Amino acid sequence: MIINTFARNNYFMKPSHIEHIGIAVKNLEKSIKYYEEVLGLECYNIEEVKDQKVKTAFFKVGQTKIELLESTDPEGPIGKFIEKKGEGVHHIAFAVNDIENKLKQAEEKGIRLIDKTSRKGAEGLDIAFLHPKSTFGVLTELCEDKNK
Amino acid sequence: MIINTFARNNYFMKPSHIEHIGIAVKNLEKSIKYYEEVLGLECYNIEEVKDQKVKTAFFKVGQTKIELLESTDPEGPIGKFIEKKGEGVHHIAFAVNDIENKLKQAEEKGIRLIDKTSRKGAEGLDIAFLHPKSTFGVLTELCEDKNK
Repeated sequence: MIINTFARNNYFMKPSHIEHIGIAVKNLEKSIKYYEEVLGLECYNIEEVKDQKVKTAFFKVGQTKIELLESTDPEGPIGKFIEKKGEGVHHIAFAVNDIENKLKQAEEKGIRLIDKTSRKGAEGLDIAFLHPKSTFGVLTELCEDKNK
Repeated sequence: MIINTFARNNYFMKPSHIEHIGIAVKNLEKSIKYYEEVLGLECYNIEEVKDQKVKTAFFKVGQTKIELLESTDPEGPIGKFIEKKGEGVHHIAFAVNDIENKLKQAEEKGIRLIDKTSRKGAEGLDIAFLHPKSTFGVLTELCEDKNK
């Protein structure tokens, strides 16, 4: 009997690191000021993601980015999140490879997917979300940088 | 005039990386199963922190730990958090050096401190919390590993 070790080891997400932490804020400008002037991180990019109705600001700390999210529309996902829960951590994104397969495997294990296949997110990454009802309350993003 | 560049550069937190992400869960055992069997991370330590009324489980992903927190008492901070907000991300911890000075500097910049000086946290680190009212909704921990 041949044991397919590769397939077995690959049958997990096995994220390499936390790609970013998404944080919902009411006012991008004021919160950028805090991250820059108190934490001493540098905002290296501001980007609008129109289909998510957000404006985002990026900082880097070690391997991980902080992504601040301000809603451009109270009916958008971040606007609704803030109304319900207040400002704070909105999601955690894990860096994975082979994202389409990882999504399939997650679904096979009973995880509810928000995105059945990946789509383009900020900074050109391929991304997909897992539903927080399946992930013990943490809205979980998988992302893959296919340009790497 | 001598410009004290060292002091100036040091007048920021300048965290090196995200040391851990604290996640409040209702049931440690079930959520460990998810992190192990779906994400493929390995739980390398379970520890009770009695003064915080929590049982914690640790995983490592890249530079960052995931710290799951189950309350051992509904009146403890995690018990209250879950009652108010549900399961999910509870805090973010940044790795800093010279933690006492960083706390002083934060206070001088108008940040409300939960801990005026550092105290011992899980895994023997020196830790202190900043109040989420000062940090745009994110309960923020600073931690320093003085054994390094």
